Amino acid sequence: MNTIIQRIEPPFWYFGMNKPEVQILFYGKNISEYIITLEDSTALTNVKRTVNPNFIFVTINTQNITTNEIYFKFQQKNKRSFIQKYELRKRRKDSALRKSFDASDCVYLLMPDRFANGNPNNKNDSNTTEKYNRNLPEGRHGGDIQGIIKHLDYIKKLGATAIWSTPLCEDNDANYSYHGYAQSDVYKIDPRYGTNEDYVILVEKAHQCGLKIIMDYVTNHWGIEHWMVKESPTADWIHRFENYTETNHKRSTVSDINASKIDRTICLNGWFVPTMPDLNITNPLVFNYLYQNAIWWIEYANLDGFRVDTYNYSEPEFIAKWTKAITDEYPNFNLVGEITMRNQSLLSYWQKDSAIAKIQNFNSNLPSVMDFAVSDALQMVFNEDDDRWDQGITKIYDHLSKDFLFPNVNNLMIFGENHDTRRLHHIYNNDIRKYKLVMSMLATMRGIPQLYYGSEIGMTGDQNLGDADIRRDFPGGWNDDKNDAFTKEGRTEFQNTLFDFTSKLFQWRKTNKAIHFGKTTHYIPENNVYVYFRYDNNQSVMVIINNHPEKQELNTNRFKENINHYTMAKEVLEHHIFKLAENISIEGKSALILELA
Amino acid sequence: MNTIIQRIEPPFWYFGMNKPEVQILFYGKNISEYIITLEDSTALTNVKRTVNPNFIFVTINTQNITTNEIYFKFQQKNKRSFIQKYELRKRRKDSALRKSFDASDCVYLLMPDRFANGNPNNKNDSNTTEKYNRNLPEGRHGGDIQGIIKHLDYIKKLGATAIWSTPLCEDNDANYSYHGYAQSDVYKIDPRYGTNEDYVILVEKAHQCGLKIIMDYVTNHWGIEHWMVKESPTADWIHRFENYTETNHKRSTVSDINASKIDRTICLNGWFVPTMPDLNITNPLVFNYLYQNAIWWIEYANLDGFRVDTYNYSEPEFIAKWTKAITDEYPNFNLVGEITMRNQSLLSYWQKDSAIAKIQNFNSNLPSVMDFAVSDALQMVFNEDDDRWDQGITKIYDHLSKDFLFPNVNNLMIFGENHDTRRLHHIYNNDIRKYKLVMSMLATMRGIPQLYYGSEIGMTGDQNLGDADIRRDFPGGWNDDKNDAFTKEGRTEFQNTLFDFTSKLFQWRKTNKAIHFGKTTHYIPENNVYVYFRYDNNQSVMVIINNHPEKQELNTNRFKENINHYTMAKEVLEHHIFKLAENISIEGKSALILELA
Repeated sequence: MNTIIQRIEPPFWYFGMNKPEVQILFYGKNISEYIITLEDSTALTNVKRTVNPNFIFVTINTQNITTNEIYFKFQQKNKRSFIQKYELRKRRKDSALRKSFDASDCVYLLMPDRFANGNPNNKNDSNTTEKYNRNLPEGRHGGDIQGIIKHLDYIKKLGATAIWSTPLCEDNDANYSYHGYAQSDVYKIDPRYGTNEDYVILVEKAHQCGLKIIMDYVTNHWGIEHWMVKESPTADWIHRFENYTETNHKRSTVSDINASKIDRTICLNGWFVPTMPDLNITNPLVFNYLYQNAIWWIEYANLDGFRVDTYNYSEPEFIAKWTKAITDEYPNFNLVGEITMRNQSLLSYWQKDSAIAKIQNFNSNLPSVMDFAVSDALQMVFNEDDDRWDQGITKIYDHLSKDFLFPNVNNLMIFGENHDTRRLHHIYNNDIRKYKLVMSMLATMRGIPQLYYGSEIGMTGDQNLGDADIRRDFPGGWNDDKNDAFTKEGRTEFQNTLFDFTSKLFQWRKTNKAIHFGKTTHYIPENNVYVYFRYDNNQSVMVIINNHPEKQELNTNRFKENINHYTMAKEVLEHHIFKLAENISIEGKSALILELA
Repeated sequence: MNTIIQRIEPPFWYFGMNKPEVQILFYGKNISEYIITLEDSTALTNVKRTVNPNFIFVTINTQNITTNEIYFKFQQKNKRSFIQKYELRKRRKDSALRKSFDASDCVYLLMPDRFANGNPNNKNDSNTTEKYNRNLPEGRHGGDIQGIIKHLDYIKKLGATAIWSTPLCEDNDANYSYHGYAQSDVYKIDPRYGTNEDYVILVEKAHQCGLKIIMDYVTNHWGIEHWMVKESPTADWIHRFENYTETNHKRSTVSDINASKIDRTICLNGWFVPTMPDLNITNPLVFNYLYQNAIWWIEYANLDGFRVDTYNYSEPEFIAKWTKAITDEYPNFNLVGEITMRNQSLLSYWQKDSAIAKIQNFNSNLPSVMDFAVSDALQMVFNEDDDRWDQGITKIYDHLSKDFLFPNVNNLMIFGENHDTRRLHHIYNNDIRKYKLVMSMLATMRGIPQLYYGSEIGMTGDQNLGDADIRRDFPGGWNDDKNDAFTKEGRTEFQNTLFDFTSKLFQWRKTNKAIHFGKTTHYIPENNVYVYFRYDNNQSVMVIINNHPEKQELNTNRFKENINHYTMAKEVLEHHIFKLAENISIEGKSALILELA
């Protein structure tokens, strides 16, 4: 690079994209004073200058380019000039039609700083502020990409088929930066996690293991340390207020016909926290930047999907456009949005082709949303022995009874916990029966199950002590850890019981297509026992969730419309055989998953 | 009537109906053995016999009839014959286009047995089983139609503009019959309430007072003592089961794509209680009977609307057809359905032209549904001083934030209590401040407010003691009552305070069109204070609901998009004046309703 230009973003681009234009940002002292030309002038379609003279945005049309290097001439009026090379790469074969994650997958969510430290040498970096301090719960603990690579086999053995890591791009906040959601450079892996190349290797190795990689993308905000927050091309790059204004978190204002304008504006434009300035995605330059950055990562790192953070904190029309731009490039690409809402109609509102959003002529284009309604229920019902009215397991029945509201229930992400919720083992006080109940439901309900790292070996934590406590270090991820829960030998008996159960369950889940994409029929819970069937034309699975503390006896006669021609049932973990003509008895606080035959 | 025919239903019909056919039921010993003819044979379009030979259903087309009396000839094969007259009446002028109740109304719900005994002579009847016993909470207390007529002025003075009385047709259950929902004859007013003619007089007198009359119609079930339950025309007239089967009350099974068939069937076909057999509205004869009975009452008694009991316990397609049949005859007629659901999307499902029902190609045709979601919230929030997260007044804000789900929010019936819910004064322990808060919201929110008799004079009761306790006698309704709460003089000071407040509030409500049909803009509650505006092009009302126990000071700056060009505000009850440029201070647990000027 010459001495004038300090940044070029995207750093390179690809031939053969569906949308052939790319808007390249050149950043350098007074760069906007230069006239920019290309030898083939037809390839240069637009030059946009901003109030900040250190930025210039240059659009090229790759369709008019045949060489994989092009040379921009920068000419200052009657003064100096220089040449800047820009690279265009060839896409991977079938890149556009890449497959993504879906209900046949099981997603393992991990936080890279807390999972495993595979490369002890990158704990600190001279260019980033916060230094390694594993004694500080909210500090940098040194986990990294190499740590994930090292344990791909572990994740595979557990039965997961995809990994969602919380953000890996640089977060240069002075402290509390380990979560990565306050990104300071979205074209660069945080050096404390590794390099961009390391990330590419992670994806390659994961693919070799049969694991998909889902990137955690943040459209709503950057970190206060982002270089373009510190020096923005335009005044409206981020939302600014006279006094610091935080979002009111009332995402319902988006669809609320009664909402005041001010409440809606503060919801969408208010900052997430003081260190996370809110991006103005309605600015076309910001929009292009975010859209191209997303595309770049998919193409560069060969990604299998996105999890999109705080999806409905962005201006709806534009986040929908951003999503569509991505799925226009990759029609099979799945994006799961974080929609932290508990009401099915509002969750549905955010899923692609929702009839509820259509009331307002809105379409988010977002294929998948997280089912926080079911998650919330999974976090409480197994402590509820009382099943009167809508209590106990009926809560989950009631949630699933509203499935018709969703355009695509199979593309809901379901989970018992994640990095923002209470820990299951805390809620259920390490009661393995209740853990098994949650997992049995996650493995058999409609949707894409998502596990949270450490669940499977009993990791706990109290969110009341701060989020760091629900994001503890995975035991064995650090060389000096006493307990290496990544190996059978290193795990305690309790941990092995949990791990073996979870692994068996999700390994089985891989084999059953009726669970992935079959229909559901469920029965009104009786005595805190919930029975449902997942089935297609070839298979049928009967699931019995006994949330009653005592053993229950089920007369199968009630289920004859689903039992149909089947006579026998095989329990999928221990392979016990049941006769369907007889009563089925089930222990208190336990689940039975039965393949019918 | 001759000696063979014991019943003819409808007893007469009307010329000039949109649907000109009427299916007349003749009931008599072996009546189906007769051949039936009319002089003008073109008018007789269908004769239907059933397995029970004592019924025959004869359809005539009134378009082909010119006289107001027609004569059926009943001819037994080679045996006796007789003539049966049938009357066709002229409709009232503009009957079809009658107006109905809407959001400009305030509905007063009363239970006739418990409101006032206007005619002490009809306490008992020789043909009905249960006898007068005012000492029995669940007994017949002797209230009647004459009692309602006597107190129309009271209801009018309160500010109500419509009366919904629970059913007045005969309920001949041996005990617990006072509620009237187990009807034994749906063409006949219960003689303990009066006669059919008395009911017509009630409507006439009410109309003279400017009060509308809404009939409580029950499509889902009749009483076990109904003559057609005791002797049915067909075996499938009511739903029958091998063993007594009660509805599971899971109305969500109707729209639930995961529901088992058996659960849905038991929901819709199971009996409401052992004394209320479930009608099979899918039988065309039952359908016609119910539809004609409804039309007959509208036309005969000159009704202004229906409240339809347990609306979504009937087979959806058919109850929707029943509703459409009525609104096809009376395009402006309003029907409010009892949809006892708490989820807005499921409530919306049952309102006419719902986008949510359209997901399943369903349209209930029901113009109005009861907003149990808001009702539930009104029954709890004013006891919630804690407003963290979704607690306190935010519950109501959250409900109203989902208004976009409804096709017509102005046609939702809103209420603080009814004959099936807990009593407000019980919940709020006679705290007049909390009562005023509920009423202030009912008087200013979108929808049709419904008051429950006795609220306005402090009537209370504990539902845990049984429904009779929330349906006590109105003091003053009986000659020997010591406290006559119908008059200012007879009311205690506490009662007068409640009555005067309620009356002032709802008298004011009559005058404000922005409240009736205006838009709503609301603001996210802060410190348990909820502010919303109701407005149209001409008027604007600012409502401040302070659910905080302490006085609050409001900076009006936040509301400038609604305050707009207005500078002053007049409180609507005491006419205090506020300047909108200044802070507004409001006492703890109180409401301010301000007309902007």
